[in-house]
Amino acid sequence: MNIVLFKEEEIESPLLKGDARFEHIKKVLHKNVGDTFDAGIIGGKSGKATITAIDANSLTFEFLPTKEEKPLFPIHLVVGFPRPIQLKRLLRDVSSLGVCAIHLTGTELGEKSYQKSTLVERGAALTALLDGAAQAKTTFVPELVMHKTLEDCFKNLSALDTLAVPKEYILLDTLGAKHHLSQLACCHAFEGKAVVLAIGSERGWTDNERLLFAQKKFTTCSLGERILRTETACTAAVSIVLAGMNVI
Amino acid sequence: MNIVLFKEEEIESPLLKGDARFEHIKKVLHKNVGDTFDAGIIGGKSGKATITAIDANSLTFEFLPTKEEKPLFPIHLVVGFPRPIQLKRLLRDVSSLGVCAIHLTGTELGEKSYQKSTLVERGAALTALLDGAAQAKTTFVPELVMHKTLEDCFKNLSALDTLAVPKEYILLDTLGAKHHLSQLACCHAFEGKAVVLAIGSERGWTDNERLLFAQKKFTTCSLGERILRTETACTAAVSIVLAGMNVI
Repeated sequence: MNIVLFKEEEIESPLLKGDARFEHIKKVLHKNVGDTFDAGIIGGKSGKATITAIDANSLTFEFLPTKEEKPLFPIHLVVGFPRPIQLKRLLRDVSSLGVCAIHLTGTELGEKSYQKSTLVERGAALTALLDGAAQAKTTFVPELVMHKTLEDCFKNLSALDTLAVPKEYILLDTLGAKHHLSQLACCHAFEGKAVVLAIGSERGWTDNERLLFAQKKFTTCSLGERILRTETACTAAVSIVLAGMNVI
Repeated sequence: MNIVLFKEEEIESPLLKGDARFEHIKKVLHKNVGDTFDAGIIGGKSGKATITAIDANSLTFEFLPTKEEKPLFPIHLVVGFPRPIQLKRLLRDVSSLGVCAIHLTGTELGEKSYQKSTLVERGAALTALLDGAAQAKTTFVPELVMHKTLEDCFKNLSALDTLAVPKEYILLDTLGAKHHLSQLACCHAFEGKAVVLAIGSERGWTDNERLLFAQKKFTTCSLGERILRTETACTAAVSIVLAGMNVI
């Protein structure tokens, strides 16, 4: 936690015992009255908070916003629902890397139970996204959208059509790839573009889904010959896209 | 586990109950007598194993080696000893990405206890590397070398001087970086090269260590402005280096 994040409505209330932020400031940062810590409002400015009172049960602070944070990168990640145990790590990591939106989608071969448990754990998913932003020391948190099917996901993504920037649609798949992702991203080819990046769940895409991607003009790329875990593949692919944007 | 890996001396013995490979073949793959599974000898050929007998306590198989595996990529990763909880994941992930060597080094600002616990857990570290290779469906496992100090690490790395290929020495650091890593890796600049990639531990490098890197002609690069966890930074940086090698 490199910055302590608050919702707008929390910024004037004391932090209470049991809140992870209270425990972090007290037990990891060892802060006392008069000390400051890095703080920010989710989706807003960052700055310094000064502790005005602290005891075993609560911590009162005054927040001084000083810095506009940079917006997230225009990367829209589409991922088949992963195993719940992988999901939190995936969300935290791609949030720390700075993607602007994560679309979790049901897939034809995906395990239906993963989708259910993700919906139940929506709170945990949002916490993982916040953890990633706090790690990256920024206030902006990616949008998380869940879709039952790839078709629903595409309907939602069609909102991007109205964006004025050029867009790149990329499908990572073992079948039908003519390029490595790095060949598409080469020479900072993604500078000034928005990128939609789709990564399958562990059982991959069906021919039907591949057809949908083809209709939407996705370019199929590979991430090499080695089989990566979904969350490693997400971090690797997002990193290469960020490299193509010349920001990493 | 996309391939079941064996040491040379294990390949003719039955797998016994309690061995993770036995449990995987029986409980995840649900294999029976006559079925085959993907198998390989660590550092050697891969192929198919056919189950010749199986009961609750042991599994006998015959292995037919058929395929020479591709060698690992010439990436030598130097990392300050991370927290033990991060280490296993880091090792598994960079092993799955295919780096050829991981040098864990003590650093001046690094927590000494991390180094001790890593040495104790050497067995767990090797298991994590094997897990990464099995995930990537290959038989080659990165070399793991531990060093007390950066100077010791450099002494060991000097063996690379005799390699005939061109070498690129890269230090990831927040201070003194003139380029993003992606600018150095641009246009597949690492094709045909060996890359030594150094990533600090969470407290970073001292001026003294920075001087050592400068003497060794390391180019200092940044991974962007966002602060990443050590293991996320390793996966991101290795991915961009692999992109620079045109293999991902």
